[in-house]
Amino acid sequence: MQPKIILGIDPGTRITGYGVIEHSPHQSVPLDFGCIRPPPDLALEERYKIIFDGVEQLIEKFKPEAIAIESQFVMKNVQSALKLGMAKGMVLLAAARRKIPIFEYAPKKAKQAVVGKGQASKEQVQRMIQTLLRLPKLPEPEDAADALALAICCAHHLRFATCTNLSKELSKTKTRSKPLWRQAASLTDSPSR
Amino acid sequence: MQPKIILGIDPGTRITGYGVIEHSPHQSVPLDFGCIRPPPDLALEERYKIIFDGVEQLIEKFKPEAIAIESQFVMKNVQSALKLGMAKGMVLLAAARRKIPIFEYAPKKAKQAVVGKGQASKEQVQRMIQTLLRLPKLPEPEDAADALALAICCAHHLRFATCTNLSKELSKTKTRSKPLWRQAASLTDSPSR
Repeated sequence: MQPKIILGIDPGTRITGYGVIEHSPHQSVPLDFGCIRPPPDLALEERYKIIFDGVEQLIEKFKPEAIAIESQFVMKNVQSALKLGMAKGMVLLAAARRKIPIFEYAPKKAKQAVVGKGQASKEQVQRMIQTLLRLPKLPEPEDAADALALAICCAHHLRFATCTNLSKELSKTKTRSKPLWRQAASLTDSPSR
Repeated sequence: MQPKIILGIDPGTRITGYGVIEHSPHQSVPLDFGCIRPPPDLALEERYKIIFDGVEQLIEKFKPEAIAIESQFVMKNVQSALKLGMAKGMVLLAAARRKIPIFEYAPKKAKQAVVGKGQASKEQVQRMIQTLLRLPKLPEPEDAADALALAICCAHHLRFATCTNLSKELSKTKTRSKPLWRQAASLTDSPSR
């Protein structure tokens, strides 16, 4: 069965954006979006705990059947990657504890899903999400818009995957990029990483 | 009061080494050491959950008053840093949930604490830990030895810190490397990051 409620997350130590959508074959309805902002003067471990607790609360409230997250990140350096990894780890752990499947998408893929091309500007993404989800104004902050884009991307991908023979899809996608193969593998409940 | 039981952790997605020592002014006694090895064929999120659960179980069993972890890592690339960040995030979260102070030390600092210089080989570290903790044989694997070195380093640092005026120590260390300042800040319960 195709997941109906999808939680998209754009993790970060300063700001973790989130977006929850309810998806039907004809449209996606936004249930909530926003961001988790741990106070920057707290110790790092406290900030990660706030991110973890926040994601757990979102899962508790909306009971998503799938979580979408970015698979690749543009990072300045190894220290940024370390911090981002810690924030992303909070999301993976919260999902694993509730056994919610995680789907990873490259940022380009998420942009393509809402704008049609992978090189769109942040504002362009926001405008298209406003249109697609019929929001009264631009979704803010950008991190929440990115999270909604991930959820929409996941909805498109899962709709496509459930319309085809999944085992065929899996064997095809093994030769594609890792993230897509990973998504298909998660769908069949047979992790082969 | 100086923490008596210290848990050292050397996090990694493949192998997370740990070492628990009980520290008195005259000697350190090893309580346990070893590693958490999540099966490599599991999904990443499942592997991080195993690391998180493992660290929580260690905390539950030994009730450490301090956790020591590496502050800097030598990494090949951004992808390794991301994965390491996720593993490290599990340790920070487990500590934050039990309000156990975390002390970070550069690998050089941990080596200095057991061997006397920062450029020691892995085997040299293992041999010195065997001597210091009076172990019947070399501590294996290397990751567990590294974790024991971190715990010993933390014990030395906290002994030094409790022998001096902490506020003086804090003001002095603010001009030193970030990790040392961070350790002192944690001791006074006034995080100023």
